[in-house]
Amino acid sequence: MAAAGTRGAMAVGEEGDLRATFRQVYGRLKAELFEDAAFDYTDEARQWIDRMLDHNVPGGKLNRGISVTDSYKLLKEGTQLSNEEVFLGCALGWCIEWLQAYFLVLDDIMDNSHTRRGHLCWFRVPKVGLIAVNDGILLRNHIPQILKRHFKRKPYYVDLLDLFNEVEFQTTSGQMLDLITTHEGVKDFSKYTMTVYNRIVQYKTAYYSFYLPVACALLLAGENLDNFVDVKNILVEMGTYFQVQDDYLDCFGDPEVIGKIGTDIEDFKCSWLVVQALERANESQIKVLLDNYGKSDPTCVAKVKSIYRDLDLQNVFSEYERTSHERLISAIEALPSKAVQDVLKSFLHKIYKRQK
Amino acid sequence: MAAAGTRGAMAVGEEGDLRATFRQVYGRLKAELFEDAAFDYTDEARQWIDRMLDHNVPGGKLNRGISVTDSYKLLKEGTQLSNEEVFLGCALGWCIEWLQAYFLVLDDIMDNSHTRRGHLCWFRVPKVGLIAVNDGILLRNHIPQILKRHFKRKPYYVDLLDLFNEVEFQTTSGQMLDLITTHEGVKDFSKYTMTVYNRIVQYKTAYYSFYLPVACALLLAGENLDNFVDVKNILVEMGTYFQVQDDYLDCFGDPEVIGKIGTDIEDFKCSWLVVQALERANESQIKVLLDNYGKSDPTCVAKVKSIYRDLDLQNVFSEYERTSHERLISAIEALPSKAVQDVLKSFLHKIYKRQK
Repeated sequence: MAAAGTRGAMAVGEEGDLRATFRQVYGRLKAELFEDAAFDYTDEARQWIDRMLDHNVPGGKLNRGISVTDSYKLLKEGTQLSNEEVFLGCALGWCIEWLQAYFLVLDDIMDNSHTRRGHLCWFRVPKVGLIAVNDGILLRNHIPQILKRHFKRKPYYVDLLDLFNEVEFQTTSGQMLDLITTHEGVKDFSKYTMTVYNRIVQYKTAYYSFYLPVACALLLAGENLDNFVDVKNILVEMGTYFQVQDDYLDCFGDPEVIGKIGTDIEDFKCSWLVVQALERANESQIKVLLDNYGKSDPTCVAKVKSIYRDLDLQNVFSEYERTSHERLISAIEALPSKAVQDVLKSFLHKIYKRQK
Repeated sequence: MAAAGTRGAMAVGEEGDLRATFRQVYGRLKAELFEDAAFDYTDEARQWIDRMLDHNVPGGKLNRGISVTDSYKLLKEGTQLSNEEVFLGCALGWCIEWLQAYFLVLDDIMDNSHTRRGHLCWFRVPKVGLIAVNDGILLRNHIPQILKRHFKRKPYYVDLLDLFNEVEFQTTSGQMLDLITTHEGVKDFSKYTMTVYNRIVQYKTAYYSFYLPVACALLLAGENLDNFVDVKNILVEMGTYFQVQDDYLDCFGDPEVIGKIGTDIEDFKCSWLVVQALERANESQIKVLLDNYGKSDPTCVAKVKSIYRDLDLQNVFSEYERTSHERLISAIEALPSKAVQDVLKSFLHKIYKRQK
């Protein structure tokens, strides 16, 4: 199925090499989609999809995608991956990036967002509009096409299909929780509790961002995912910690470093910070939050931030970060496999005390 | 997995009985979704989904869904289906109805429609809005959950997953063709050709409405779909014929009988009628079409219909109907299996010369 030339070009290498290889695989996967027998592309359709893919799929940090092959390498403990194995890891990594693109295209429509990854949101591009809904669905439909082309004969093919289906369902369910909790018209703090927060984050972010890449790597390595429930739980906790960092940086990070200006306060988001604040605030502080949270006026935003400072949320966060890290390390070190420990530590290392 | 009581209630019977059984299965499948281990429903989430499902899934004619079990019976040639077999046929039938609901929820958003099946479109229901995008995705995600719960141990499980993935992709690709052909701002007849029309209809309607139910029945009967390419082609042609009827009835059907008032002319739709008219019209008639097609003014609509009559499109349609039927019958009778012939003839019989 693969042109020998393309395959030969994918040498296994270090971090930078893997990133370059990963990017090359995108071009190959895209070309293959147009050859799929299930649909007879017109020139116009091909051009549309080509532009839609380039706009939405490869422009992110690609950490999720690349981490599949990285993890696969660690699971193989020193044995060099063949070019074919690297390619398969990258193909699964791109499936995760495609999944992410699908979520983002649709989320941006639902949130009425303006920009994404430094460009206009896809639905705001001239002549796209709500066709973007269908384009989002197409992105999702490309995943089983990639899986069928490259994994159909693998013993774990059906496990891959089940995995992607389950994780997509969990993410969409998390998005539903978020939407019905925070978008119901009247501004209402009653649902902004730690329990609600944790449930949303677990489903909406942790499964697809943390569990999915590792699960893909485990399947590539021939493992049965039923034996890795502990690993799943650790990764879900790590994903939660990651989202808490995200919420923290949205308010207290350096916009120059994180590359965007946070608007969680303006958008009445169910952020870890506001949930923590509500747990700690006295009556008069809650009144200030009620009057100012969810407003775009900079004076209101400043009042909210001032409450956060009065409640010492920066230290609350540091303490959360420290104890999370400690708990995660203990849980990881209790796992039976050294290789799996290395995979999880590598994930944790990449995000611990991150500034962006 | 099934409560004995529920299963016992599903007696095999004639047409009316099957419809009643089919409806009962909906309740069971819905209840099972809430028990799925992949997501821990809150009361609020359960209520939201319950209402969303009832609004969108069971309100159609259910012909596609019921035809799975009908076809499965014919494939078993006289052997009575067990209650379990009837249930599995109905479960796959409901997967098709869920798929249809998913398409309709999203199509209504993209088309900015107002009503569907005699009710408000889901996104127009108060407090829903664009959350409907995510709800559409959830509908789609329920399909692999139903398949996993009831078919995971069947030898054809992976074929079912591949089938639903492929048909969803084809339908979405057909919708893309339709959107990029007919929604590109400027009104333009240059793309309204029979080739374009046939391609859109084949992908957007025929695969999921005609091929998918029969393919599900074939898998239930233990067949390998690779051996039924002829059957697929016949069903795709039948699906095209079905859509041509739809377009014809939109303009010339009795609104009392079809249950809605057609608006294809007002909406500048790439209808079989306008494509036929463009093939036959002289210069002055084309000018009238250009000036009046795609306008909601009843005078404009009347002028378009008058051109259709001048071009004798009612007879052109009758002739198309006659030759399509003849060609389909010949193709069906050339098939090796009498049981498969019966399945296809039953489909054709249900739609030939339909008035609604």
